[in-house]
Amino acid sequence: MAKRLWDKGGSLDEAVQQFTVGNDPELDLALVRWDCFGSAAHARMLAEAGILSKKELPGILQALSEVRDTALSGKFTIPTELEDCHTAIESALVEKLGESGKRIHAGRSRNDQVITAMRLYQRASLIDLLLQVSRWCEAMSARAAELGDVDMPGYTHLQRAMPSSIGMWMHAFIEGGLDTIRFGLSVLEGLDSNPLGAAAGFGASLPLDRNLTAEFMSFSRVQRSPIDVQNSRGRLELRVLRWCEEVSSLIEKLAWDMHLYFSEEFGFLDLPTELTTGSSIMPQKRNPDVLELLRARASRVRGAASELAWVVGKLPSNYHRDYQYSKEPVMKAVANTAESLDMIRHVVGLFTVNKEALAAAMTPELYATYYAYRLVGEGKPFRDAYRETAEKVKKGEIDVASLKGDAQAIKQRAADGIDSASKELSSLVSEITQLQKRFAESERSVYVLESV
Amino acid sequence: MAKRLWDKGGSLDEAVQQFTVGNDPELDLALVRWDCFGSAAHARMLAEAGILSKKELPGILQALSEVRDTALSGKFTIPTELEDCHTAIESALVEKLGESGKRIHAGRSRNDQVITAMRLYQRASLIDLLLQVSRWCEAMSARAAELGDVDMPGYTHLQRAMPSSIGMWMHAFIEGGLDTIRFGLSVLEGLDSNPLGAAAGFGASLPLDRNLTAEFMSFSRVQRSPIDVQNSRGRLELRVLRWCEEVSSLIEKLAWDMHLYFSEEFGFLDLPTELTTGSSIMPQKRNPDVLELLRARASRVRGAASELAWVVGKLPSNYHRDYQYSKEPVMKAVANTAESLDMIRHVVGLFTVNKEALAAAMTPELYATYYAYRLVGEGKPFRDAYRETAEKVKKGEIDVASLKGDAQAIKQRAADGIDSASKELSSLVSEITQLQKRFAESERSVYVLESV
Amino acid sequence: MAKRLWDKGGSLDEAVQQFTVGNDPELDLALVRWDCFGSAAHARMLAEAGILSKKELPGILQALSEVRDTALSGKFTIPTELEDCHTAIESALVEKLGESGKRIHAGRSRNDQVITAMRLYQRASLIDLLLQVSRWCEAMSARAAELGDVDMPGYTHLQRAMPSSIGMWMHAFIEGGLDTIRFGLSVLEGLDSNPLGAAAGFGASLPLDRNLTAEFMSFSRVQRSPIDVQNSRGRLELRVLRWCEEVSSLIEKLAWDMHLYFSEEFGFLDLPTELTTGSSIMPQKRNPDVLELLRARASRVRGAASELAWVVGKLPSNYHRDYQYSKEPVMKAVANTAESLDMIRHVVGLFTVNKEALAAAMTPELYATYYAYRLVGEGKPFRDAYRETAEKVKKGEIDVASLKGDAQAIKQRAADGIDSASKELSSLVSEITQLQKRFAESERSVYVLESV
Amino acid sequence: MAKRLWDKGGSLDEAVQQFTVGNDPELDLALVRWDCFGSAAHARMLAEAGILSKKELPGILQALSEVRDTALSGKFTIPTELEDCHTAIESALVEKLGESGKRIHAGRSRNDQVITAMRLYQRASLIDLLLQVSRWCEAMSARAAELGDVDMPGYTHLQRAMPSSIGMWMHAFIEGGLDTIRFGLSVLEGLDSNPLGAAAGFGASLPLDRNLTAEFMSFSRVQRSPIDVQNSRGRLELRVLRWCEEVSSLIEKLAWDMHLYFSEEFGFLDLPTELTTGSSIMPQKRNPDVLELLRARASRVRGAASELAWVVGKLPSNYHRDYQYSKEPVMKAVANTAESLDMIRHVVGLFTVNKEALAAAMTPELYATYYAYRLVGEGKPFRDAYRETAEKVKKGEIDVASLKGDAQAIKQRAADGIDSASKELSSLVSEITQLQKRFAESERSVYVLESV
Repeated sequence: MAKRLWDKGGSLDEAVQQFTVGNDPELDLALVRWDCFGSAAHARMLAEAGILSKKELPGILQALSEVRDTALSGKFTIPTELEDCHTAIESALVEKLGESGKRIHAGRSRNDQVITAMRLYQRASLIDLLLQVSRWCEAMSARAAELGDVDMPGYTHLQRAMPSSIGMWMHAFIEGGLDTIRFGLSVLEGLDSNPLGAAAGFGASLPLDRNLTAEFMSFSRVQRSPIDVQNSRGRLELRVLRWCEEVSSLIEKLAWDMHLYFSEEFGFLDLPTELTTGSSIMPQKRNPDVLELLRARASRVRGAASELAWVVGKLPSNYHRDYQYSKEPVMKAVANTAESLDMIRHVVGLFTVNKEALAAAMTPELYATYYAYRLVGEGKPFRDAYRETAEKVKKGEIDVASLKGDAQAIKQRAADGIDSASKELSSLVSEITQLQKRFAESERSVYVLESV
Repeated sequence: MAKRLWDKGGSLDEAVQQFTVGNDPELDLALVRWDCFGSAAHARMLAEAGILSKKELPGILQALSEVRDTALSGKFTIPTELEDCHTAIESALVEKLGESGKRIHAGRSRNDQVITAMRLYQRASLIDLLLQVSRWCEAMSARAAELGDVDMPGYTHLQRAMPSSIGMWMHAFIEGGLDTIRFGLSVLEGLDSNPLGAAAGFGASLPLDRNLTAEFMSFSRVQRSPIDVQNSRGRLELRVLRWCEEVSSLIEKLAWDMHLYFSEEFGFLDLPTELTTGSSIMPQKRNPDVLELLRARASRVRGAASELAWVVGKLPSNYHRDYQYSKEPVMKAVANTAESLDMIRHVVGLFTVNKEALAAAMTPELYATYYAYRLVGEGKPFRDAYRETAEKVKKGEIDVASLKGDAQAIKQRAADGIDSASKELSSLVSEITQLQKRFAESERSVYVLESV
Repeated sequence: MAKRLWDKGGSLDEAVQQFTVGNDPELDLALVRWDCFGSAAHARMLAEAGILSKKELPGILQALSEVRDTALSGKFTIPTELEDCHTAIESALVEKLGESGKRIHAGRSRNDQVITAMRLYQRASLIDLLLQVSRWCEAMSARAAELGDVDMPGYTHLQRAMPSSIGMWMHAFIEGGLDTIRFGLSVLEGLDSNPLGAAAGFGASLPLDRNLTAEFMSFSRVQRSPIDVQNSRGRLELRVLRWCEEVSSLIEKLAWDMHLYFSEEFGFLDLPTELTTGSSIMPQKRNPDVLELLRARASRVRGAASELAWVVGKLPSNYHRDYQYSKEPVMKAVANTAESLDMIRHVVGLFTVNKEALAAAMTPELYATYYAYRLVGEGKPFRDAYRETAEKVKKGEIDVASLKGDAQAIKQRAADGIDSASKELSSLVSEITQLQKRFAESERSVYVLESV
Repeated sequence: MAKRLWDKGGSLDEAVQQFTVGNDPELDLALVRWDCFGSAAHARMLAEAGILSKKELPGILQALSEVRDTALSGKFTIPTELEDCHTAIESALVEKLGESGKRIHAGRSRNDQVITAMRLYQRASLIDLLLQVSRWCEAMSARAAELGDVDMPGYTHLQRAMPSSIGMWMHAFIEGGLDTIRFGLSVLEGLDSNPLGAAAGFGASLPLDRNLTAEFMSFSRVQRSPIDVQNSRGRLELRVLRWCEEVSSLIEKLAWDMHLYFSEEFGFLDLPTELTTGSSIMPQKRNPDVLELLRARASRVRGAASELAWVVGKLPSNYHRDYQYSKEPVMKAVANTAESLDMIRHVVGLFTVNKEALAAAMTPELYATYYAYRLVGEGKPFRDAYRETAEKVKKGEIDVASLKGDAQAIKQRAADGIDSASKELSSLVSEITQLQKRFAESERSVYVLESV
């Protein structure tokens, strides 16, 4: 009968078992694939080190590969008494292979095992999210190519300030996306370090080759300090979640803008009816729930990051069981960010603009600064020009027609900016796609022994 | 075929439907009972107002009661296309009753309906949690009666400071529990206000009697301002979650203490083996995971409160769809607090103390202040006594034996304090139990028409 | 020369002194008054207990009263080498009185002393804040009396929903204020417990009468458990800050509303020019900075509460020096809330409404639900009425004129609600004012010996 | 008389002025240097563009350089009526130079001006902090060279787990420091973008050369989207604060470890008496306040980051006055992190270890896993070896002497790891020092016209 890894014959209080295992069996389903990957790398290294015989290896790799496939097809389950995916996988190996299965845990602990699985999970998730951000940016560029030239008031303090345009507005989010992709790559870089072999946080007195497992899992370096492997768990996870928070708050800002512009009072944007919902009580309503929930998703992600910070923060060094609770917020933040990215791209592709309302909102005072700059062009100190213009505005004496042209150059800068951003984006996408391929290739090949 | 409440014949984008509905069908299962309660109260009031005929009423109450029972037995489901429990319930009524079912939504909106259901849910949950805190306090009192007299060093700055005892230590948590129960009652008081009838936030042009629904649901007052009903949603929910946070951090502190005292270095406490877990790698380990997870649970609750604060904060007045995301953190915080309370009580009942280790830790310097107080008793100014004692401590000249008796009076105060606290606790428990009965009775009787 | 209280002749590393003392000398200036109050109570109790002679007492009370007056006039300073107000005050006593000054610390520790001072500070601050909230409510009632009848669209999802009015809108904040005052009183109730006598957290082997100091400081009860006195420091402070957060987010919501309504697109409200600011670059701008900063103040208060939660959370029992850092966020939250309350009341008193813009915004679809309710009144099931009305709205066939009257009753409910709220408010203000007088009287009389 | 930049002759409500200006005059003192730098770059560019005459330029640069020097010497003040450093500097220029001073604001807004100043401030602060982290790492390497070989129990769950050493423990923090420096460089990279020229967020209709100001200020690129310049303010500031949070929580963890190891129960570490403080009540106490406050500082930084997140989050695009409140948390986090880094390095340099206590704590069960690995080495499957070892441990049959040698190799890995880390650190320090020089050089030379 399958047992807990630490089973030594004693019994465990039923309530304590329920409480300590918690929702691990459910959450860990997302980790089975990655734990199999890490376990395969570990097994191959153990075989090189002579701890597993080379004869046993193919069976182990085969069994791990089967477990992985079962999990990907949604059919792997983790019974509460087996606590977590690590136990369930070892247990499956023992069942399939007998003795060989009992060898696999040599030189590792669940402590470094779960960090390895989580790191692989986060690496793959981050790659996916980065590509989703890029697709969102591409969708915005496409709409900006179509609508960029449409005038729109620019606001500060939610007050009409200076001329802007749909293109200038969308450009902001394209650059924001690009900037956050760049930063996300540095978060990914932090994850690119092999934790396996740290064992419980104090290494192992076995001849493990950590460079080899790094190579199998396509990590660029070994995380040298076993204690730091434990201590960094929260540190690196928090970076991922803070980055999800950054992406989500970028979406939040765009959703807030669209929500505002969708109101009757602004009336700048519209959504196709299929994207709006209705009210249970008010027959006339067409509500932009999708925008509100895109905004609110950022709060979920912030909540998850805050939870993670509390779980992992303010503890002395080394492993504490508290860390088990880092999985839930990490997975929650990743899932919510992914769903939001898909949805904002969908919305960006489908919103329409109300050109009449936008044109009507381009009221003369928006051009006051341009007027002052004309005076500056004539040699007047800006501060004097400013005060003179203020007087003209009060008297309604600003002639807008002659100033409208000045906006054109600024709009052109946005168009040029989007072009440049798109080029930089393409190059980043290539880089990320390369990484993605490399990681996928390492996962594929870990199960395949070229010459046994 | 069942429809969305706001169905007007148009179609809804599939992805948008998935995104906006989210995990509502799952979360709302916890609300079906409460939505039926609120709906029954609403129906009875509508019948009084002549909007429903008195003939239709029994059928509606019967149908609601059946839905409630189905939900309690775990068999009610909410299909994604029906969005939420409100729609699923109205839909069930229409299916069972035809026209009558279509009448039930008169004078309300899902906006006040969900607030009503959430308020009833929170009221019942808070009552349960308050009673759980009281049971934890009782468990501590019982252990204090048994072990209270055992000496224990008192620490400040994690340094040995002055004599303490198991009783003094447990007394702290009993008083903490008592204090938090009192405060929790004021949170409950804030929930004791009927939101139903606010409709979408602007009332209804129908002759609704909000006092009557208040009476049916056993609310002491009507929440007069419909806009404040919407605005207060987050305000009142946050109070509940901040209170859960307070309770959880009380448990966290006790768990931290026990974790520390369980270490080999302190060695003051032990847990029965069935309450400890083992390591996957280290054969000798017996780990207090349950204590660590009790500590970590507080972080989950804080994360939920933080998420809620973000979801509901920083928004203009009135309903926004963002509020949909308040349900998840509220339910998560309530569930985690409830589970932690059960577990800490379990642990409190079963831990043992290591009297030898405790006695050995009662080192002489703990009595230095008592010595200084003896000098004060002889007329010496405290500051001089302090410095003189410091010298004596350095020279190891403090005679502890004669000072040990001074601790006895202080330990007695703890025993007396626990007695007083227990009496106050009993009286609060009566009060809470009364409330619980009153609320249960109102729920039972809302479905029962005495005379139709 | 003045010394640290714990001076035993050794030296202290200069950098460590700077680091550990930090900004205490500055923050503690706000506590001198309260530390003198607590010290006077302590001294009187010590005299009763025979630890101070009755002859010494008048001198000590006189000296404490002088220190208090010096501090209130802004002339008391705390040199870094004296660390904090407690040391500076003891040092001043020793300087003025010699031996008597050295007696004052008998039976207490800075640990319970600072909690006492902070509790008195928070009690007084909370009373002030409660009265400020009440004055804000009164200002809103006054404006509602003047403008309440003006129609205004009611929004949900930031979309026009149903008829509302200035009165209905302001009513929401009056009720919110009232509700938060009630809840604030329960926070105050939690503070109404005497911590003095807990000493370092383990009591004192001296015959202290904690009931007597409670009476001198007008606390209703003694906080029985000395360990809980330490453990509750963060618990009770957090309640105060969460309440400040609640008040601030109420102001935030009103400021957000006003900010939105002040925009050109809504154009519902205006601010006198003296309340707006300008732009350094755009000559035409008139910005509602005051509203934006009222909104942003809530974020400051949330930040302070979050800081406090981190400082005091996730620690084992008993005093840790970490608690020193609770003072800054408490004082920051109190100060910011007080300033915001003053300012929002000021703004509420001075804003104007643009009746034309409001009237123009009362578009027909706002009345759709009223129309549906008319059909309900004629016996149609609501869900059918809803769908029929939706059709009418699409065809523009809703006759608004006949429906406008239906809004009147709802507006009247708001007016009645404001009346009821005002009455309840008056009664709470009386209660708070009574408390304020009682506390002030206890402070005044603690320095005065009727018969010595 | 000096005026607000937006003065158009009207008056400003006194209370509103106090409220809106707040503590800007105090905080902005830290920005004067950076605003002068940005202004000098702007002036030189304006001269190139012909908006300032080349004749005026030397005077402006001279005046800005003087203002900078006055500020650095602590003599620059900002009167409340001048609101902020930007106004005070323009006002100083006008006073010194007349008309020329009024020209300087052409083509910019306080909105991009403050972002420029803050970005320069953050760039310089981040460089300083990175170098401080490196010095802390160096201090740890030095102590590890001295004490690294001393055995120490390794803990998991705060239970003795496996052999560790002072070197393995310190290695963790050296690697943590190194990792956080690398990540900090990517935060710095995000700041390396010129915001100047975005004006109020919509560019300017003047022929500004943003590449030129980028070159003057040594930014590698121009932040192309003016709206994103505004939108990214919080985004980039939050990265800085999250990084400060990461550094602070690394220090927190080390401080927590040292605090624990300093307790009588562990007794592994000691601090020189000059680094400890005493108690006001307990004559015997020697408290590690410095460690507790190092721990608590992380909470301050988290509080500041949380405040910033709230201030800048959940807002629509473009400038809102709310952003003014981002300055305080940014400066607070930077200052607290800097002070903590200095202090932890100080403490690391001075703590001592208690070799006897450490040796005594190296109890046999720590070697259980090594024993199991011996069995693995003999061909036993790990899971069987684990169970067999558990039995041996129970019976006390594990012979530790023969296993102690196995720890040596693991300790050697830590020593090697520290070597490798030190080399990587040196190379990063060179890189950072290069950047620091480049930035300093650009600041020096901006005021110097080679050929006028």
